[in-house]
Amino acid sequence: MSLGRIGWDAFQALSLEDKGPQLQEDGRLFHILFAQQFDRASLDALGRLATRIRFIAKSKAGMTFLQGLLDHRRAMLYFTQPSTRTFLSFCAACEILGMKLGEVRDTSTSSEFKGESHEDSVRTFSSYFDLIIMRSHVGGLAERMAWVLSHSERPVPIVNAGSGRDQHPTQALLDIYTLQRSFEDRGGIDGKTVVFVGDLARGRTVRSLAVLLTRYEGVRQCFVAPPPLRIGDDVLAMLDAAGCEYEVTTEFKPMIPRADAIYMTRVQDEWDQVKGESADIDTSAYAFTAEDLERLPPRAVLMHPLPRRKEIAPEVDGDPRAVYWRQMRNGMWIRCALIAAIFGCAGALGEYGDAEP
Amino acid sequence: MSLGRIGWDAFQALSLEDKGPQLQEDGRLFHILFAQQFDRASLDALGRLATRIRFIAKSKAGMTFLQGLLDHRRAMLYFTQPSTRTFLSFCAACEILGMKLGEVRDTSTSSEFKGESHEDSVRTFSSYFDLIIMRSHVGGLAERMAWVLSHSERPVPIVNAGSGRDQHPTQALLDIYTLQRSFEDRGGIDGKTVVFVGDLARGRTVRSLAVLLTRYEGVRQCFVAPPPLRIGDDVLAMLDAAGCEYEVTTEFKPMIPRADAIYMTRVQDEWDQVKGESADIDTSAYAFTAEDLERLPPRAVLMHPLPRRKEIAPEVDGDPRAVYWRQMRNGMWIRCALIAAIFGCAGALGEYGDAEP
Amino acid sequence: MSLGRIGWDAFQALSLEDKGPQLQEDGRLFHILFAQQFDRASLDALGRLATRIRFIAKSKAGMTFLQGLLDHRRAMLYFTQPSTRTFLSFCAACEILGMKLGEVRDTSTSSEFKGESHEDSVRTFSSYFDLIIMRSHVGGLAERMAWVLSHSERPVPIVNAGSGRDQHPTQALLDIYTLQRSFEDRGGIDGKTVVFVGDLARGRTVRSLAVLLTRYEGVRQCFVAPPPLRIGDDVLAMLDAAGCEYEVTTEFKPMIPRADAIYMTRVQDEWDQVKGESADIDTSAYAFTAEDLERLPPRAVLMHPLPRRKEIAPEVDGDPRAVYWRQMRNGMWIRCALIAAIFGCAGALGEYGDAEP
Repeated sequence: MSLGRIGWDAFQALSLEDKGPQLQEDGRLFHILFAQQFDRASLDALGRLATRIRFIAKSKAGMTFLQGLLDHRRAMLYFTQPSTRTFLSFCAACEILGMKLGEVRDTSTSSEFKGESHEDSVRTFSSYFDLIIMRSHVGGLAERMAWVLSHSERPVPIVNAGSGRDQHPTQALLDIYTLQRSFEDRGGIDGKTVVFVGDLARGRTVRSLAVLLTRYEGVRQCFVAPPPLRIGDDVLAMLDAAGCEYEVTTEFKPMIPRADAIYMTRVQDEWDQVKGESADIDTSAYAFTAEDLERLPPRAVLMHPLPRRKEIAPEVDGDPRAVYWRQMRNGMWIRCALIAAIFGCAGALGEYGDAEP
Repeated sequence: MSLGRIGWDAFQALSLEDKGPQLQEDGRLFHILFAQQFDRASLDALGRLATRIRFIAKSKAGMTFLQGLLDHRRAMLYFTQPSTRTFLSFCAACEILGMKLGEVRDTSTSSEFKGESHEDSVRTFSSYFDLIIMRSHVGGLAERMAWVLSHSERPVPIVNAGSGRDQHPTQALLDIYTLQRSFEDRGGIDGKTVVFVGDLARGRTVRSLAVLLTRYEGVRQCFVAPPPLRIGDDVLAMLDAAGCEYEVTTEFKPMIPRADAIYMTRVQDEWDQVKGESADIDTSAYAFTAEDLERLPPRAVLMHPLPRRKEIAPEVDGDPRAVYWRQMRNGMWIRCALIAAIFGCAGALGEYGDAEP
Repeated sequence: MSLGRIGWDAFQALSLEDKGPQLQEDGRLFHILFAQQFDRASLDALGRLATRIRFIAKSKAGMTFLQGLLDHRRAMLYFTQPSTRTFLSFCAACEILGMKLGEVRDTSTSSEFKGESHEDSVRTFSSYFDLIIMRSHVGGLAERMAWVLSHSERPVPIVNAGSGRDQHPTQALLDIYTLQRSFEDRGGIDGKTVVFVGDLARGRTVRSLAVLLTRYEGVRQCFVAPPPLRIGDDVLAMLDAAGCEYEVTTEFKPMIPRADAIYMTRVQDEWDQVKGESADIDTSAYAFTAEDLERLPPRAVLMHPLPRRKEIAPEVDGDPRAVYWRQMRNGMWIRCALIAAIFGCAGALGEYGDAEP
């Protein structure tokens, strides 16, 4: 594995795009750390793999086959930043593939961890597990841990389930998978218009997805937010560098008829620097109501990473263009696909039965 | 499923007995919400199924068969009201049938849940799981969630593991199963005298069991409690309406020789309105001591939903009529039977091997 | 089982060595409570069994075989004293053998446990589980619970995963297994010099291992600690009674060249009687540094029960004599062996395939 042969400082000196190949082993995905490590080909392959798993899982025989793939492997969920939703989704994905699970969700109560370094804790987990899925408030921690393990006697893959403010790659992957499915009979994601709405300043979800959309041809990204929650200039610079079209505005309603996909987000007030500062921001103009359904194009889709507050009225749920519940379930399938890819199960999945597709 | 075709207000307007059939799907148990949904035939069938599972589980081959029944299914234990005992019992039941488990026991620490509606949380769980077992301080919440899910794209059965002060149907079912087993060579539950003792005002266990005993012929129910913990008038009205015989008294000891089953309960001080108010109630006359064994008829049984405090002296445990430990284990078997019934496994269980009964 | 036929007072009157045989059933390990119950023959047999399991686990087919051994059994982890490390190790061991897991790690939040006796709680667990692994601040609790269960209708084995200040038998077993593996081509543990360093006053790990080392011929034990953390006189008296050689000193560095194994420990300040009292003890002379590697004999090993603080510099980790990470993983294998022995799987393991050794 490349990461085991490069020093920490040299690795840190690389751009995210150049770090990507270092995270592979034998040409295969190994550590999953940031959205930037995925190119168009790997996104397409993951989507196909997720769909294949989803179809196989429809029968009891298929489930038995899936559970046999990794029933000799164990996954650790190391979630020091709470997240029930992402946690449950990863649990489901691991169990569908037969993996046994362990979890550490709070290290504050355990005397064992007092005074122990993060490096030692993660090496401990690697002693008992074959995969470590971690989520942390600390930006860059997953990357450091991946490097530490790749330099140990027992390298074990790390999957980043949310790290600091910046990266949440599996969320971006499930969003891409939802777009792939939504546009599969409309020529795919290429050329589509994606409208992001809400707290674009602090949503790591939006940041990661914006990166992955640059992997497609002619996608137009529109960023709609009140001024205090405006998309970061670094994201726009990234889009400029990639030669991608974008638009920044504070007006939501006029964008609705132009959208192929609308991606709603909630105010991420857990990242408030001063407690309660977000409460003063008027976000009432950035909600999707039942009346807005009339302005939404007939084949467009409405997405949300959930949980929602008032960004989408519950009455909208019944409309077939409201795909956020399916989007959440897509997260389970794309995580299955990721883990299957890490452990080299793609071949066995391809050969299973006559399942279509 | 009927529940998916009835509006919330119309459903709420029904009596508990009339709600029962709405909770079935294709004539089979689906949502398990309250004791009132069980009639005599379903109680008899569940007891037989529990016994069958209990016998099959005695061999390793039988356990392998049982675990194969639902190994493609996943159950969520959503326990916002703490309960280790009921929790462990459901875990065991699910695992005996091969189900994978997930749990959410405290939503207060998760930033993800802040501001999310109960409806959205439960729809989230239904995305990753095939069964939701829930326990809550909030009366009626399980019923609401069942209705929400039955109206969603992914209806998933809800099992109520304790809801507010009122309903704890699986406890009542395990009590019935214990009585069925205790009286199986004495003509069954019909015609027996059941004596309830202790905190009858607040025990949802007693309330639920009192309902189910009306499904049998000629059962006499005796309610023995100090005045502040007297059985509720609504329970007595229910017995009147069902034409059942009952007795209310403050004197425990004279009842002992007349009982076929004595059902002891502890003071439920977690429901105190003023903290500590129960501490002033003298319950010393409502305990079963080693000396009371002499007055207990030779074939009567002594039950307790556990945990106990001082209601039953530990010296009583060795007597064969003290069935409370077996009663607890019966809970595991009846929960197996319920889940097996929900997922339509009764047929496969009936055909397995030559296991008797 | 003998323990079920002896009264509590009579059992308590026995020495630890005499209690040992009472903990067996049909000549087989049953309850695992303290290091003293293991003799040389059982240590050798456990080590062989652990190695056998470790080899079988290397293949997917082997893992499938192992998981089939106890997939009809369920284990409860009852850890009221927090310990993520020991907890994860036991989880892994149970799952390798196919056991399903349940856990209770905090009884303070559960209203169900209020007012319930420890005896009743453990009998509850025994209703749903086939093995109880417990860890507690309370010295002697595991022993009491073993006796209670052996006297109940449903005797279930208890494994002590750390009890009070005194006993942590599975840690001692994994240390012995690490020494067995380290010296397997040097004539085994007999005749070796083991140097304990650090907080010898309060480490139950050291106390338990010192006992097991007396089962070997001619082992010399050296205890190196600052005066406030000196080894207890009771341990020295035990060594005197066993006729074993030992040495007590405050000087660490001169011991390094004489050691076959050095066993480093951290200050156990969680046992401070006055909060912070350990902080005043100067332990800087009791750390192993990168320079010390030059003085360490070429075939000696450096051990640590982990977690470490500053007792061993991270730069030492890369040296092949630093075996503490492997030692931790050995814990998983020896716990597999223990559980396999308790449930009588040694025969099936011996007959499996042509796996060597």
